[in-house]
Amino acid sequence: MSSASLEWSDLDRQAVDVVRALAMDAVEKAGSGHPGTAMSLAPAAYLLFQRVLCHDPSDPKWAGRDRFVLSCGHTSLTLYIQLYLSGYGLTLDDIKGLRQWDSLTPGHPEYGHTAGVETTTGPLGQGLGNAVGMAMAARRERGLFDPDAEPGTSPFDHMIWCFASEGDIEEGISHEVSAIAGHQKLGNLVVVFDSNQISIEDDTQIALSEDIAKRYEAYGWQVLEVDWTASGKYVEDVQALYAAMEAARAETERPTFIKLRTTIGWPAPNKQNTGKIHGSALGPDEVAATKQVLGMDPSKHFDVPDEVLAHAREVVARNREARAEWDKRFASWRAADPERAELFDRISRHKLPEGWHKALPSFEIGSSVATRKASGEVLSALAPVLPELWGGSADLADSNNTTMKGEPSFIPEEFQTREFPGNRYGRTLHFGIREHGMGAILNGIALHNGTRPYGGTFLVFSDYMRPSVRLAALMKLPVTYVWTHDSIGLGEDGPTHQPIEHLWSLRAVPGLDVVRPADANETSAAWKAILEHTDRPAGLCLSRQNLPVLDGTGDPDCVARGGYVLQDASNCQPAVVIIGTGSEVQLAVEARKTLEAQGIPTRVVSMPCVEWFRAQEPAYRQTVLPHSVRARVAVEAGVALGWREFVGEAGEVLSLEHFGASAPYKTVYEQFGLTADRVVAAAKASL
Amino acid sequence: MSSASLEWSDLDRQAVDVVRALAMDAVEKAGSGHPGTAMSLAPAAYLLFQRVLCHDPSDPKWAGRDRFVLSCGHTSLTLYIQLYLSGYGLTLDDIKGLRQWDSLTPGHPEYGHTAGVETTTGPLGQGLGNAVGMAMAARRERGLFDPDAEPGTSPFDHMIWCFASEGDIEEGISHEVSAIAGHQKLGNLVVVFDSNQISIEDDTQIALSEDIAKRYEAYGWQVLEVDWTASGKYVEDVQALYAAMEAARAETERPTFIKLRTTIGWPAPNKQNTGKIHGSALGPDEVAATKQVLGMDPSKHFDVPDEVLAHAREVVARNREARAEWDKRFASWRAADPERAELFDRISRHKLPEGWHKALPSFEIGSSVATRKASGEVLSALAPVLPELWGGSADLADSNNTTMKGEPSFIPEEFQTREFPGNRYGRTLHFGIREHGMGAILNGIALHNGTRPYGGTFLVFSDYMRPSVRLAALMKLPVTYVWTHDSIGLGEDGPTHQPIEHLWSLRAVPGLDVVRPADANETSAAWKAILEHTDRPAGLCLSRQNLPVLDGTGDPDCVARGGYVLQDASNCQPAVVIIGTGSEVQLAVEARKTLEAQGIPTRVVSMPCVEWFRAQEPAYRQTVLPHSVRARVAVEAGVALGWREFVGEAGEVLSLEHFGASAPYKTVYEQFGLTADRVVAAAKASL
Repeated sequence: MSSASLEWSDLDRQAVDVVRALAMDAVEKAGSGHPGTAMSLAPAAYLLFQRVLCHDPSDPKWAGRDRFVLSCGHTSLTLYIQLYLSGYGLTLDDIKGLRQWDSLTPGHPEYGHTAGVETTTGPLGQGLGNAVGMAMAARRERGLFDPDAEPGTSPFDHMIWCFASEGDIEEGISHEVSAIAGHQKLGNLVVVFDSNQISIEDDTQIALSEDIAKRYEAYGWQVLEVDWTASGKYVEDVQALYAAMEAARAETERPTFIKLRTTIGWPAPNKQNTGKIHGSALGPDEVAATKQVLGMDPSKHFDVPDEVLAHAREVVARNREARAEWDKRFASWRAADPERAELFDRISRHKLPEGWHKALPSFEIGSSVATRKASGEVLSALAPVLPELWGGSADLADSNNTTMKGEPSFIPEEFQTREFPGNRYGRTLHFGIREHGMGAILNGIALHNGTRPYGGTFLVFSDYMRPSVRLAALMKLPVTYVWTHDSIGLGEDGPTHQPIEHLWSLRAVPGLDVVRPADANETSAAWKAILEHTDRPAGLCLSRQNLPVLDGTGDPDCVARGGYVLQDASNCQPAVVIIGTGSEVQLAVEARKTLEAQGIPTRVVSMPCVEWFRAQEPAYRQTVLPHSVRARVAVEAGVALGWREFVGEAGEVLSLEHFGASAPYKTVYEQFGLTADRVVAAAKASL
Repeated sequence: MSSASLEWSDLDRQAVDVVRALAMDAVEKAGSGHPGTAMSLAPAAYLLFQRVLCHDPSDPKWAGRDRFVLSCGHTSLTLYIQLYLSGYGLTLDDIKGLRQWDSLTPGHPEYGHTAGVETTTGPLGQGLGNAVGMAMAARRERGLFDPDAEPGTSPFDHMIWCFASEGDIEEGISHEVSAIAGHQKLGNLVVVFDSNQISIEDDTQIALSEDIAKRYEAYGWQVLEVDWTASGKYVEDVQALYAAMEAARAETERPTFIKLRTTIGWPAPNKQNTGKIHGSALGPDEVAATKQVLGMDPSKHFDVPDEVLAHAREVVARNREARAEWDKRFASWRAADPERAELFDRISRHKLPEGWHKALPSFEIGSSVATRKASGEVLSALAPVLPELWGGSADLADSNNTTMKGEPSFIPEEFQTREFPGNRYGRTLHFGIREHGMGAILNGIALHNGTRPYGGTFLVFSDYMRPSVRLAALMKLPVTYVWTHDSIGLGEDGPTHQPIEHLWSLRAVPGLDVVRPADANETSAAWKAILEHTDRPAGLCLSRQNLPVLDGTGDPDCVARGGYVLQDASNCQPAVVIIGTGSEVQLAVEARKTLEAQGIPTRVVSMPCVEWFRAQEPAYRQTVLPHSVRARVAVEAGVALGWREFVGEAGEVLSLEHFGASAPYKTVYEQFGLTADRVVAAAKASL
C-alpha cells in the first residue's frame, strides 16, 4: 500500500459530522429514506470528493473527469450531500427536498436529472456493472482518440470510482461484471465495498458468510482491506482509506476492491449497527442523541456552518490546477491530431457522420437471408464508417452475428484466442455467458461518453438482462440489443429457448423500442433508424431461420415509421388489413395472394416497431390502418396481448398463447397453426 | 479424499464408448444438437448412474432416490442416454427421435415429459439453483418427517447430484445459489463442474479467467479437483472421479464442488476441444473417424451391443438391495410414526388438509390495511395448519411480510441472529439480496416433493428473477411469489422501484397467475385460491400502502373466479362498467358513487386475476362483462397493454404509460392522474 499522506484538518472532521447530521435531518424531514449508510460512509464520500476524485464541480460534464458511481443508490444522500458541499449546484433546499415531488433529490439518484449523477442506481448491482462498463469505455475511447500516449499522460486517462454495499455484491450481476473486470484487467476501476454487515433483515449473517475478499482475489482483483472496527472501538481511520485509494490508483493492471469495514449509522447511540437505521428515519430523539454524541446542537437542523461550506467548496479551487493542466494537454492533443479531435467532438455530441448510411447494405429481392445474418452484414459494413459503434455477444457471437468482420477483440493481449485475436483497444466484446452483466456494462459504456454499444443474446434470454434494459430505458440510453432466435422459428432447442411472451413484455417497457424486421432489407433500415435515435434503447429481434427478401421493404423511411403499407389491395380499397411483424410478414404476403385470388382485396402492413408507429401523426396512422376497414388480422409468433389495440374488436389475432416445442421449425409452425392458410381463415372470419 | 475402490470392467469401458457413439449418431440424425459434452461427460455420467446414484430406474418417482440435475441442459443426451441404458423406459428409438416433434427426447430435458428428468434445464445456471433448492427441501422435509433420526439412517436422507458447465458458473445466478448453498452448509449437495474450457465462442479464455475453485472455496464449499489432462495426454481416470464423488458423499457439513477437467468431444480427432463440437453435428467423416479411434465399426449407427445394454441394465438389480433396505426403513418409520406418515402422504400428494381454509383470517370492512400486511397475517394464520407451506424473502422480510410469526429460520444454528433465531430444520427462508437465486431455489423446492414454497421481493424486482419464474410456469410448479410494493403507491423510492410494465409483462407469461387483490379480504381469498392450485405458479402483487377493506370482497369463490361484480349499478342495469385491480379498485368504487349520484348506473368489477377470469365459462364472463354494455373503463396503475381486450373499442383505460417518480404516494397518484375524478371522466367519455 502506498504511504501517501493526507492532510485532514479539524474542519474536515467537522465537515464529515455535518454530512452525518444533514443525512439524519433530511430523512427525518422526508419521513422516510436511508440514513444509516449516509452517516457511516460520510468520511469515505467526503474524502473521495475532496481529496481523491479528479473532478470539476463547476463543469459536471468535463470529459477529463473521474467518474463516481454510487451502486448502493438507496444511500443517495451519500452523493447528494457531496454534490452540495463540493459545489455541483445542489443547494441546502434541495437537500431539504429529499424524496419530494419534482425535487433534484429523488429517493434514488437519477441520471439526467441531477448534475453530478453519473448513472441511475437503486436496483442493486447495476451500478457496479455500469462502473465496469465505464472503465471499459474509457479504455476503448483512449484507443480511439489517443492510443499512443504513454500511460497516465493522455487527457483520456482517468479513473472510475464506485461505492458498493453488501446488497450489490450479493446480487448475481456482481459476479458477472466483477469476473469481466478482472479478466479485462481494468486498472482504472476502484470499488470501495462498504462492509457494514447490516441489511434490511438486520445482521447479514442470516444470509451471508462467503469470504468476499477471497472471491474478488479469485476474479484477479487487487484486494485491500481497511477495517475501522479493528481496534475494538470504532475509529474512522481516514488516512488508511486514503492510502488504500492511492494504492488502488497506482495499480494499473488490475481493478481494485477496497473492503472497508464500517458500522452503519455510527455514532447513533441506540440504532447504529441495526437494520432499522438502514432504511428508516431515526426519530427525533435518536437524532438529538446522535448530534449530542457529535458535539452538535440538537436543536439545530440542516445546520451547515459557513466555514465548513467554504472549506468544502475549496475543492473547486484545489482542482483548478489539475483542470488547467488537463486543458493544456487536451489542447495540445487537439492541435497535434485534428482528425481525431474531430472524431472526438462528433462522437461526444452523438452526431453521426455525413452520409454514413450509404454504407448500409441492401439485399436482393427474392433471396433468402436470416435477419440475424443481415444484421451481421450491416455491422461489418458500418465498421469503417462508425468507429463509435462496438459490441459483441454473451458467448453467442456466431449465432447473434455480432462480430464486425476483421475487427480485433477488446481483450488484454494475453487472453487472445485462436478464434479471436485482439488487444486492449479492440472492438469486439466478449461478455461470456453473462447477459445481465452485459446489460449493465452496455449502460456504463453508453453513459461514459458518446460511443454506441450493442450486445447480443437469444431473445428468450432478454429475461436474464431485463433489469438493465429497464434502466437503459429509464436513463434514455442509446444501447442496442441484438436479440436473435426471436421465435419458435429457432426450432429444435425447444420451449426453454423459444420466446413466446417476450415481444409484448418488452414492448411494455416505457421508452424501449422493440424492432422486429420482416426481412434483410428491413433489418438494414432498422439499424439506420435505431442509430439515428440517441435518446432510447432498442431491441432488435432477429430470426434464426432464413426469410425471403420481400418486394417493398427497402424504403428506410417507411421502416422508420414503424408500420407501413407493404402491399396494398390490388384495387387500393382493402376489405381486410393483415398486420405482420418479422418472420410472419411472409405469411401475411402469402395469405394476401390467396385472398386476392379469391376476390378479397387485401392490404399487408409490415409493423417492425410498434413504438415508432405509435409516435406517428394520427393522419399517417390512419392512412396505414384506416378506421373504415374493420376487418383486420395481426399475425405474430408470440402472445397476442397488445395486438387488440391494432385490430379492434372485429379483428383477429393469430398468436401463440402457450409455450413452444422442440422440433424442426417448420414442423413447429405447422403444428401450432402459424400458417398462411390460418391467416386466410382469420381474415375471412374478420370480414 | 476417500480411497473407495471401484470395479470398472472392459464392459464398462465399452459402454462408455457406446454412449459417445450414440451421442454422435443422435445429433447427426437430428442434424443439430450438442454432441461434444455428451461425448466427454460419458464416463462421468455412466459412472454416476451405474455406481454412485442411489436410484431405481423401475420407479423414477421413488421418494428415497438421489436427485440428479443436469444444469447444462443443452447436453441433454448426457441424461437421455443414461436413462435409456439404466432402464427408465427410454428406448433406442427415443434416442433416434432426438429433437423431433412429440419425441421423449426434446432439445433440452423437460420435467414432466420424460421419466427420470428431475427438472427442465437449458437456460444456464437454473439447474444449479434447482439443485440447491432440492438440497434445502430434502433437509426441511427430513425435519418435518423424521427429525430425530441419526444422520444417514433416515429414509429421508439422500443426495442431490448436479452436473454443471462453464456456462452455468459464469451466470450470475450461480453466484447467488452457490453462496446460499455454502451458507446453508448443504452437505447433501454435490456439483460436478465440467471444466472443458470450451464454449460457443470456442476457447473460454476469451471471456473467463477467474479461479473458479478459489471462488467456491470462498463460498465455503469443499472443493476437489480431478484433471484428466494432468498427465499431458488425456486419461479418463474414472477411479479418481469416483474417489472424489465418494469424498463428496462423506462430507456432510459442506456442499462439494468437484472440478473435473475434461476435453470436450474427446476423442474426435479433428473437432475435440473446439467450439464447433459444442453445438453442431460432427459431420459423417468426423463421426466415422472418431468411431475408428474408439475401435468401433464406422458403418454402424445407433449400435448398442446386447451385452453392453444387459450390463448397464444390471443397475436395477444392483440397486435392488439398497431399495429393499430403504423400503424396510420406510415401513418401520411409517409404523413408528403414523401421524407423520400421514403428513408425508398428504404432502406428497399435494393434498391440502380438510378444512384448512377455516384458519384464513378475515378483515373488518371499513378498516385500512395494506394488502402486504394482510398477506403476512394469512401466512401466520396458516402456519400451524399447513406445515408444507414455507418461505421467506430476498432480504425484505419485514417489507414483504413473509415471516410467519414465531416460526424459526431455516439456517445452520451457528448463523442465527438476534432478529432471526433458527435451526437447520427451520421454516423461514433468508435468500439475501439474491432474487434470481431465490426463484431457482423455489423451483427446486417445489420439484423435490410436495412442500409449498413462497418467496418475496418488490414487484419491480420480479425482473431479477424472471427466468426462474418462466421455468416455474413451464414446469407447472406451484410456487408462490409475494411481490409487494406493487405500484407507484410505494411512493418516495421513485421510478427505479415503481413497477409500471410489470403486471402486464408478467401476465404475458403463459401459465403464470398474476393476482392483485383489491384489499385485505381479497388477499385472504387469493391465498386460498392460489394454494388450491397445484399445477401453476402465482405472483401475488400486494400494496405497500394501506387500502380500505371494501364491502363485498369477502367471498372466496368470487375471488377464485378472477373477476366478479363487486358493486352493481343501483338499478342493476349498468350504463357503464368500471374494472379495477388492486389498489385502484377503491378509485372505481369512489367513482361509482359520483356517477350514480349523477344518475349514471355504474357497475364495479374487481378483477384480481385476469388468468382465472379468462378460465371461466363464457356465460359467467358474460354476466360480469355483458356484451350489451359497451361503456367500460379499466383502471390500473401500470401500462394499459392488455386491458383493451376487456374494455373493447368504446372503452377507456386509465393507465400509466411512462415511468414513475419519487414523492409521497398520494402526490404521485394525483400528479399522474390516477384519481376517482379521472375515472369518472373516463366513464363519461366511454358512454
